[in-house]
Amino acid sequence: MLERLKKEVYEANMELPKRGLVTYTWGNVSGIDRNEGLFVIKPSGVPYEELKPEDMVVIDLNGNKVEGKYNPSSDTPTHLELYLAFPEIGGVVHTHSPAATAWAQAGRSLPCYGTTHADYFYGEIPCTRSLTKEEVEAAYEKNTGLVIIETFRNINPLHVPGVLVKNHGPFTWGKDAANAVYNSVVLEEVAKMNLMTEILNANMQPAPQYIQDKHFLRKHGPNAYYGQKRD
Amino acid sequence: MLERLKKEVYEANMELPKRGLVTYTWGNVSGIDRNEGLFVIKPSGVPYEELKPEDMVVIDLNGNKVEGKYNPSSDTPTHLELYLAFPEIGGVVHTHSPAATAWAQAGRSLPCYGTTHADYFYGEIPCTRSLTKEEVEAAYEKNTGLVIIETFRNINPLHVPGVLVKNHGPFTWGKDAANAVYNSVVLEEVAKMNLMTEILNANMQPAPQYIQDKHFLRKHGPNAYYGQKRD
Amino acid sequence: MLERLKKEVYEANMELPKRGLVTYTWGNVSGIDRNEGLFVIKPSGVPYEELKPEDMVVIDLNGNKVEGKYNPSSDTPTHLELYLAFPEIGGVVHTHSPAATAWAQAGRSLPCYGTTHADYFYGEIPCTRSLTKEEVEAAYEKNTGLVIIETFRNINPLHVPGVLVKNHGPFTWGKDAANAVYNSVVLEEVAKMNLMTEILNANMQPAPQYIQDKHFLRKHGPNAYYGQKRD
Amino acid sequence: MLERLKKEVYEANMELPKRGLVTYTWGNVSGIDRNEGLFVIKPSGVPYEELKPEDMVVIDLNGNKVEGKYNPSSDTPTHLELYLAFPEIGGVVHTHSPAATAWAQAGRSLPCYGTTHADYFYGEIPCTRSLTKEEVEAAYEKNTGLVIIETFRNINPLHVPGVLVKNHGPFTWGKDAANAVYNSVVLEEVAKMNLMTEILNANMQPAPQYIQDKHFLRKHGPNAYYGQKRD
Repeated sequence: MLERLKKEVYEANMELPKRGLVTYTWGNVSGIDRNEGLFVIKPSGVPYEELKPEDMVVIDLNGNKVEGKYNPSSDTPTHLELYLAFPEIGGVVHTHSPAATAWAQAGRSLPCYGTTHADYFYGEIPCTRSLTKEEVEAAYEKNTGLVIIETFRNINPLHVPGVLVKNHGPFTWGKDAANAVYNSVVLEEVAKMNLMTEILNANMQPAPQYIQDKHFLRKHGPNAYYGQKRD
Repeated sequence: MLERLKKEVYEANMELPKRGLVTYTWGNVSGIDRNEGLFVIKPSGVPYEELKPEDMVVIDLNGNKVEGKYNPSSDTPTHLELYLAFPEIGGVVHTHSPAATAWAQAGRSLPCYGTTHADYFYGEIPCTRSLTKEEVEAAYEKNTGLVIIETFRNINPLHVPGVLVKNHGPFTWGKDAANAVYNSVVLEEVAKMNLMTEILNANMQPAPQYIQDKHFLRKHGPNAYYGQKRD
Repeated sequence: MLERLKKEVYEANMELPKRGLVTYTWGNVSGIDRNEGLFVIKPSGVPYEELKPEDMVVIDLNGNKVEGKYNPSSDTPTHLELYLAFPEIGGVVHTHSPAATAWAQAGRSLPCYGTTHADYFYGEIPCTRSLTKEEVEAAYEKNTGLVIIETFRNINPLHVPGVLVKNHGPFTWGKDAANAVYNSVVLEEVAKMNLMTEILNANMQPAPQYIQDKHFLRKHGPNAYYGQKRD
Repeated sequence: MLERLKKEVYEANMELPKRGLVTYTWGNVSGIDRNEGLFVIKPSGVPYEELKPEDMVVIDLNGNKVEGKYNPSSDTPTHLELYLAFPEIGGVVHTHSPAATAWAQAGRSLPCYGTTHADYFYGEIPCTRSLTKEEVEAAYEKNTGLVIIETFRNINPLHVPGVLVKNHGPFTWGKDAANAVYNSVVLEEVAKMNLMTEILNANMQPAPQYIQDKHFLRKHGPNAYYGQKRD
């Protein structure tokens, strides 16, 4: 069942430790098959070294497990809400990568200070509000998804493919699982750079809007000219 | 004698350089067999590359060496005090991992700023007071254990499986040697994240208590639902 | 065509991920054959793991592609301007290495605080002004080259073989592609050191000029005495 | 000639890149044979990957090359002065390791904030004054040695086996070349930790003297009890 997607999601998960984004099991990647209405996600708490493609868990859009010997990631209800609310996305990633998590703990959105950010994220990467006590106690992981969606009321999730969940850490997404991991790597790199930038200049302002426009649009949309026209 | 425990403790020790927590010989792990009333600890000052399972030293609960060709770690009396005072623990680790040591040198407890911390430590990770001159001169390593125990008068050591010893560095513990090493990795990661968090926000407050409750309790205790119910 | 230069430029490109200067495809190296009036540059957006010497793209000094199945790096017009304006240079590098990019984002020139810097860069490494909206929209990459050249009106590019482009990141150059990469490594290392230096001393002043003179001149020029007289 | 010492010095040099202390050729190690009155040092500017034991250069205590096809390290006169002034030392190391260099650039001595430092350095690690213009121009490398010796007028170089040369970087020494490298690793680690410590606590004071005494003396001198009594 969904063998190709399971392999893709497995490989995307294995990128996380390879890229230095996760310690132990602190991350998870999923990918969706929109035609089948099913997504595939990492099992909960299984070490990366033991993970195999067939261990991936299949979930339907009501959040029910359809196949898999393991429990799915405890963050599955968050992934589900994002797939339901953002119909254009094909993959979701959650990590506790250290610099992005520091911004999330600080409760601060990541300003766009330069082109590394602007190449992949169009505008600041927002930080959510804290969940309320009621939201945490009633349905924590589902409400984590809902507070992300609330944060994106006026933001195009394809233009800003990631978020910082306050007190928690980053979620990113993309056209597929591999692309969502790519955006996690960018987010961590930018989080690290921007921390250093603020140490060097206590009065930082975002990069000019026209530089942000230029960089995002030379890589995305109809007039993109970066790369080999493969994406 | 205690072959299986020696192997476990050996492997837990070897995790320390692999996880980037120790330079040279600056760390040690022990594990206890409560039925036998004996614990097993790394020898003092032997390089990790030369270490073998049979080099582990066996100590009784009076602190006497029972078996082993090498001297035990000079921190053995600290491990002993922790085993005596905290009957639920099965392993102890000491390192000089850089970020955790920086907090210890700064004499500051690690506040809980987010879920990475709350998943494994329930509340702040305390920093001890300084030892007095008398304590240092009379029985330094034993008194290091006693000042940790004093610090935990009102803290459950299973809920907060680690401490920062002022001017010195971290000790962690856990249900066994491997779990104690796991907690050392968490502590270093959180120490690094929280340092960055404070740079980003000069007025940090701990994460809301209900988020700390949720994260710790979804991984620990009777209502835990993270993972595959293996621990 | 230009097989030896392609190999050199390929190898110089491969140094970037090996030295930790690039994530994914975020960097590019070129090298020039002044006799032929042609330069060779990395293709745009091709992963380093897939790159081969024959994938390098050949460009003439009008900026036209002369050979190559791929599109050249989108930064090619910047490289071109540097080759035209700085006739003594043989290689150019662009990266988003994190510490150097942080200084560029902060809009700050790198002061010479010590001999690590002075061994390779004679005086501060300047940061350009921001490009204007018109410059960005009309010919972004070409104007990036022109603003670098403007910044070097009164600076010898052989004495200061690199620059920080505001809001963007570093460009370096050298006598050939390999030497330009070397200077990128130095720049990142110095950017990292100098950030730490400013944290440690809020009132830093540049190193005395006579120390800067000594270190640069013991490695460069007719009285150099460092090394084996191979460069 | 001095085959065993050359091998020791070669291996000590190779530890520098392995331990992350040097980029390219930015470091050098020497070791002395006091009976022969000769020391052996790395050649200048030869990449570590190409270095062989027989490339080491032999120097006498007048600073003359006695054997070797290469030029010795340009820092040879500094090593010479240290061997002449500190008769108990057997090896010398110079690096530009980033955190230690940041302290040197900041012109700050490294305070003893904890036991990681106190285990190997007894008291603060001093930073020299700047060399004068005359000292730099007349005999830079020799005067670098002399300013170190001046800094140690009232310090036992065996108790504090290292120094920060202002605007430049660290030198360390030890009973032999390998031990001098060990002290370079300690110095870099402590420099990194102490930088973090100062970020966490703006009013840091050194660790209590009795803790410094305890840690240094449990590893050094007649009452040492750390390790296996091999050193």
